[in-house]
Amino acid sequence: MPDAYIVGAGQTEFGTFPSESYRTLFAEAFEAAVESVDGPIDAGDVDEAVVGTLGVGGRQLGLSAPAVTEHVGLHNVPSTRVENACAAGGFAVRQAVQAIESGIADVVLAGGVEVMSDMSGDATKYWLGVSGETEWERLTGTTFSGVYAQMASAYLDRYDATTEDLSRVAVKNHANGAKNPKAHLDFACSLADATDAPTVADPLNLYHCCPTSDGAAAVLLASGDVVGEYTDERVRVAGVGAASDRVGLADRDSYTAISASKEAGTRAYEMAGVGPADLDFAEVHDCFAIAELVAYEDLGFCDPGEGATLLREGVTDPGGDLPVNTSGGLKSKGHPIGATGTGQLVEAFDQLTGNAGERQLDDPTYGLAHNVGGSGGATVVHVLEREAAR
Amino acid sequence: MPDAYIVGAGQTEFGTFPSESYRTLFAEAFEAAVESVDGPIDAGDVDEAVVGTLGVGGRQLGLSAPAVTEHVGLHNVPSTRVENACAAGGFAVRQAVQAIESGIADVVLAGGVEVMSDMSGDATKYWLGVSGETEWERLTGTTFSGVYAQMASAYLDRYDATTEDLSRVAVKNHANGAKNPKAHLDFACSLADATDAPTVADPLNLYHCCPTSDGAAAVLLASGDVVGEYTDERVRVAGVGAASDRVGLADRDSYTAISASKEAGTRAYEMAGVGPADLDFAEVHDCFAIAELVAYEDLGFCDPGEGATLLREGVTDPGGDLPVNTSGGLKSKGHPIGATGTGQLVEAFDQLTGNAGERQLDDPTYGLAHNVGGSGGATVVHVLEREAAR
Repeated sequence: MPDAYIVGAGQTEFGTFPSESYRTLFAEAFEAAVESVDGPIDAGDVDEAVVGTLGVGGRQLGLSAPAVTEHVGLHNVPSTRVENACAAGGFAVRQAVQAIESGIADVVLAGGVEVMSDMSGDATKYWLGVSGETEWERLTGTTFSGVYAQMASAYLDRYDATTEDLSRVAVKNHANGAKNPKAHLDFACSLADATDAPTVADPLNLYHCCPTSDGAAAVLLASGDVVGEYTDERVRVAGVGAASDRVGLADRDSYTAISASKEAGTRAYEMAGVGPADLDFAEVHDCFAIAELVAYEDLGFCDPGEGATLLREGVTDPGGDLPVNTSGGLKSKGHPIGATGTGQLVEAFDQLTGNAGERQLDDPTYGLAHNVGGSGGATVVHVLEREAAR
Repeated sequence: MPDAYIVGAGQTEFGTFPSESYRTLFAEAFEAAVESVDGPIDAGDVDEAVVGTLGVGGRQLGLSAPAVTEHVGLHNVPSTRVENACAAGGFAVRQAVQAIESGIADVVLAGGVEVMSDMSGDATKYWLGVSGETEWERLTGTTFSGVYAQMASAYLDRYDATTEDLSRVAVKNHANGAKNPKAHLDFACSLADATDAPTVADPLNLYHCCPTSDGAAAVLLASGDVVGEYTDERVRVAGVGAASDRVGLADRDSYTAISASKEAGTRAYEMAGVGPADLDFAEVHDCFAIAELVAYEDLGFCDPGEGATLLREGVTDPGGDLPVNTSGGLKSKGHPIGATGTGQLVEAFDQLTGNAGERQLDDPTYGLAHNVGGSGGATVVHVLEREAAR
């Protein structure tokens, strides 16, 4: 079974680009990924393509993968869309890894793209809502903020954590995103800003919620057999884990943990042969501030209920033992659904190859990316390892 | 690299079931697949799930894979939706094969489901249309019938074929479908019926077009390492090939051939180590009658322009050298988008295991399934081989 390596990764700025074509966004991310590869590579090298999207904002609901890959010059290459709501981009990378490991492809493009802002009035809210459970969440008027607010209420009730802790997630991630030229909300905020913000869905306020973004991201993967043709910097996909769970929150075992994340993390660690203590950084799915605290626990960074302590002690700050969301996370970098999970791997690749600019960590070896669909209906986790050049 | 085997396959009846839940349809197909397996198997054996759907009729656009797999008792199992328009179900099976070949899973469920008829007025037409190229086909008012009518016009103009030949496709496939208890339009028709029908999009008449169907299909695959636990009847996925092309017909090289089908077929034959002459039967994507003639040529059953001759000479009749669409094809069996490609493999499995009832062919060894997305934006081809029990 050949190993899969990431040899290039790039993305557009995440932001509000209602006039932008989804094709143009995808092409910009693809070009950025191509340019990031050390050696020469072009569309002709790609054997397989996988694209994550909820549906490019409704502009091309069917055949949306071939529609974007034809635009970057991939012809005759198998091109498939995968969708697992907000985890579509992460699952696209997972399928790309499988394509390599199955021996069917040597070089694979995994990408994600979404246009969310080109809608009138409340349409964006509805479009996001299609990833919620239909009958008992969406059709009863529960938005995603509402679902995560229920998780936050249960968490704050059960554990020693406060809404100020939720605001601390925002403060940390905005501080990181302010250093990321690709971030949607690229400004720092104070704890007062993040605490005194208007309520969205109690106990979540505006600073506890990620923005609705447009954007695209792309990752180029190569098998161990050919990786040397493209780069000497070996960023290996050491572990991949995925799991699903019931789509509706009320049907799940817990409101204060996401079982699919636990399973996905366990599987990824096992495949990689490492544990949370080996990680040098992580990108986790902080669509709402509560989700970051829960992710710490689901991924074994700390025990259940200890997420806020980890945050308060600065462990997940850039200077801490396990920096989380150096990119700014979904909260500050942004959340263009299908592009989000792929975009996490762009940050991880940049960190591992020393290209994270002002956000660069000191010589990291292991990084993790954690991408959640809906409120936990599906999760995918990747563990990347920078190998010494061989 | 472990081989992938189909150990079970089943489907619902295809038809018009506007009141039916997509979950119930999927569960019925899953149960039929489970019951078709020789040995004991249940949801707990499944390591991975892949579901093809255009969006279950809009009822659950996001997380539609976990939404149906949770309903059949798959928990914690990675569940991913794949979409390539009308080829979603075939691409789901391809991803399942990759999961096995990559070593990540031993038993995989690949399924497809669609509800198309639960819409008012022209909504079904629009919903189908989302798989067409958006700007130059769908938004200019070109339906799928219109796109295939352009292909038919070009074909009839270029080659020695007539609209009567198109009608012969319908006659053959309806004769087959009349023997299929799962078929949507399960009645025979005469050449006069199929010739004197009202025009849909000139030169295509009503009998040259497949129906809009609801339904689900499911296939259970196992790796060579564990297949013996489930069955002694070895139906191996000997070859898989896939390719994409430009989504819009006008952007493609030819109106009389589908390049993605040629490429996908070539790749599947190469992997299987067989050619068209070795096949004992094929299920091809006859969404419109012209598509079946073009498929004969793209898949190497005959030279370009010879498709009608093959049909007229009865080569593709059940008693001919290469029976095509013994299930009734999309034309008679029906076309519930996401379920169609998976359903083709149900027929192939039934033929290879001697369970095709009145449609049973005499001891077939090799069967092919050919599933096209849109008007040729993506194609996937599988070659199955029945191995002697070992």
